[in-house]
Amino acid sequence: MARKASLSGFPEWLPQERLVELHVLDSLRRTFELHGFSSIETRAVETIGQLLRKGEIDKEVYGLHRLQADEDPGAPDQDKLALHFDLTVPFARYVVENAGHLAFPFRRYQIQKVWRGERPQEGRAREFTQADIDVVGDGELPFRYDVELALVIVEALAALPIPEFRLRVNNRKLAEGFYRGIGLDDTAGVLRSIDKLEKIGPEKVSALLQEELGATLEQAEAALKLASIRTEDTSFVEQVRALGVSNELLDTGLDELEQVIAEASRRAPGRVLADLSIARGLDYYTGTVYETVLVGHEQLGSICSGGRYDALASKGNRKFPGVGLSIGVTRLVTRILSQEFAAASRQVPTAVLVTLANDDSWSQAQDVAEQLRLRGISVEVAAKAEKFGKQIKYADRRGIPFVWFTTDNGDGTLLHEVKDIRSGDQVAADPELWSPPAEDLQPQVTAVGRQD
Amino acid sequence: MARKASLSGFPEWLPQERLVELHVLDSLRRTFELHGFSSIETRAVETIGQLLRKGEIDKEVYGLHRLQADEDPGAPDQDKLALHFDLTVPFARYVVENAGHLAFPFRRYQIQKVWRGERPQEGRAREFTQADIDVVGDGELPFRYDVELALVIVEALAALPIPEFRLRVNNRKLAEGFYRGIGLDDTAGVLRSIDKLEKIGPEKVSALLQEELGATLEQAEAALKLASIRTEDTSFVEQVRALGVSNELLDTGLDELEQVIAEASRRAPGRVLADLSIARGLDYYTGTVYETVLVGHEQLGSICSGGRYDALASKGNRKFPGVGLSIGVTRLVTRILSQEFAAASRQVPTAVLVTLANDDSWSQAQDVAEQLRLRGISVEVAAKAEKFGKQIKYADRRGIPFVWFTTDNGDGTLLHEVKDIRSGDQVAADPELWSPPAEDLQPQVTAVGRQD
Repeated sequence: MARKASLSGFPEWLPQERLVELHVLDSLRRTFELHGFSSIETRAVETIGQLLRKGEIDKEVYGLHRLQADEDPGAPDQDKLALHFDLTVPFARYVVENAGHLAFPFRRYQIQKVWRGERPQEGRAREFTQADIDVVGDGELPFRYDVELALVIVEALAALPIPEFRLRVNNRKLAEGFYRGIGLDDTAGVLRSIDKLEKIGPEKVSALLQEELGATLEQAEAALKLASIRTEDTSFVEQVRALGVSNELLDTGLDELEQVIAEASRRAPGRVLADLSIARGLDYYTGTVYETVLVGHEQLGSICSGGRYDALASKGNRKFPGVGLSIGVTRLVTRILSQEFAAASRQVPTAVLVTLANDDSWSQAQDVAEQLRLRGISVEVAAKAEKFGKQIKYADRRGIPFVWFTTDNGDGTLLHEVKDIRSGDQVAADPELWSPPAEDLQPQVTAVGRQD
Repeated sequence: MARKASLSGFPEWLPQERLVELHVLDSLRRTFELHGFSSIETRAVETIGQLLRKGEIDKEVYGLHRLQADEDPGAPDQDKLALHFDLTVPFARYVVENAGHLAFPFRRYQIQKVWRGERPQEGRAREFTQADIDVVGDGELPFRYDVELALVIVEALAALPIPEFRLRVNNRKLAEGFYRGIGLDDTAGVLRSIDKLEKIGPEKVSALLQEELGATLEQAEAALKLASIRTEDTSFVEQVRALGVSNELLDTGLDELEQVIAEASRRAPGRVLADLSIARGLDYYTGTVYETVLVGHEQLGSICSGGRYDALASKGNRKFPGVGLSIGVTRLVTRILSQEFAAASRQVPTAVLVTLANDDSWSQAQDVAEQLRLRGISVEVAAKAEKFGKQIKYADRRGIPFVWFTTDNGDGTLLHEVKDIRSGDQVAADPELWSPPAEDLQPQVTAVGRQD
């Protein structure tokens, strides 16, 4: 990536970079669909009222106005439009609006751009793509989906050309139950402090807990001990029990997290861990919380986060609890490209360039191209009968592996030949039968130097 | 479509409708890639200065502002951001910015949302998807690309589940040369009047030409005669010649249009016509212009338009002439859905639901699912061991064709069976070997009652 975005925070890819992004998007779609998730998209805009319903983030939102602002100058602010900043809030609105048309539990994936007016930095853009999966129930949603989504997301990430990753899982009930059990009732406040652990360290968090939340030293130390527990198997249960705190919510949380880790450690050993320091900022999570780091690239931040939310969407008395995760596609692709984790085998979809012997043969060359395309081969036809060397150079510059020559034998028959410009091999070929080797049919995106 | 968008002009699809849209998008991508077009995307925002560089359309643009507008209150208006209203202007900017990294002639497709603050109506949304193809040259671009793009777009449209269509082609040089040849030098003005032909009829256009452009009755009638010519073959050339006008630019235009129609009428007889009334509003077109109507749905407006532009993009003295077309995907999909031209065979990607005999068998059911997915079969696992009738109903409501049962034989072995819930047939099956019939593997989107 020698280039810089011409607008800071709004990355754009060259064609060969876009092939890597497309590979990531196609791979995610494939995994999600294999697990029965339906595609939906929501509009890019929401009303400001809708976006701010759950509090937070107003400073990061891009509002919209028509340049010729003749319309509704007096419209209430909450009815004005703004670009969505994630896909969860729009999805919740979509579920409520279309509840009568959806089959619950409803499984959907959603891959779209979102916008945040934050200061751009490495791994944080103003326009970026997220890939979300969620399952939403009508009234209730079995806990098993919290287990399943961890498995799906591990499979989705494992199929990408990225380094090894760790899905860290925690449970809000576990943490909140524990805090209550030691006598700290402002559980949201404790979570907010614990969330700063990685940034400011345990001593400062302890001070925060004591100064801002009135915790005793013992309470602060117990909260920090909980946050220090991190296991690849279900042994975290015993470690928590050893802290000697008892609380009903804590028991529920322990049981839930144990279910996730038990199944995940069996299916994806080493990739999923119980990490009792994970807090996740957003306050709509009510149980399981997930976040994911790339091993060796932890400073990039979480590449995939989410959790269980029991009250994000409701319609009158009807509640739609859900669980979901969101992959930061642009963050991943930016890293894949900057670190050259993967590359495309050529710049263009084209596998064959049909050359022209003379300018009148263009239509005949189109016939050849048509025959090849019937077998799914991507073909371009030269636009001008330049010297063959120049036509071959056209192919070479784009990484097109094959060029096709048609020669008039002079007796009304045609001689077709195809040349592999990498090896120089040239053979006679029938446009109705010839196909390139499977690996040359489409640009291949392959991982370079993956460490697992 | 019983539902109405909750925000007028911002359509959203239900999962089964989205499958139709995905089918259209996938089909377009496939055709474009078969013809060697590379995918790119540009950011959704441009600076206002960039968007208005070519005049026109300022009233339709959505400007952006951060809700907490602490940043650059004094930034010049032209540096402020707005959502793009088409993909041509952003593409021109992209080409100029990345010229050093692209191989010319550069062929790209671009499928993205665009936004216009127009009054919503049937066939016109405020947020909609366009699918563009363009070829751009460095300095010059052979005319043959004008011919090729007509062929590609016909192939792309013919693969969609839509009624028969007509690609109408004209040439600005032909029209301008003709107008000059009869002594009307304000050719842009004449084009603007002729553009209103369909809306206001020939008499009012004649009056406009005379009153606003100072044309004589004879000149007005000659211009209208030219606009009345419409042929499925190259006979338009003779009809124009018969009007007895001579002009060099007219000759060039006639020759160019003849090339397009000669090749297209051979490859796509009846689908492409010379229509000398086509003007296209945008003033950056300099030669070929295209537009497309659905037969029987002409009032929907053009579903695919474009043309040749010789001066849209430039970098100092370096010019990047191009030719391209843009398909109105949302307009098409809205029509496909409202007229039920096509439907998806089921709501979800899922082909098989693996049922649970009891709650402890979930992990075992995941094993079965994993084996099936290895062969590309989309599988869901039931979340709860409800009565089989209820589990089957889950599948039935979503159109999932197969349910899978695993029974413990009591001797440590398992009996696997799969049931086609449409026929009721149930057979023993091996999770390592069984696959559904090819037509059940994925949701099929099929044209209903297509008239060709």
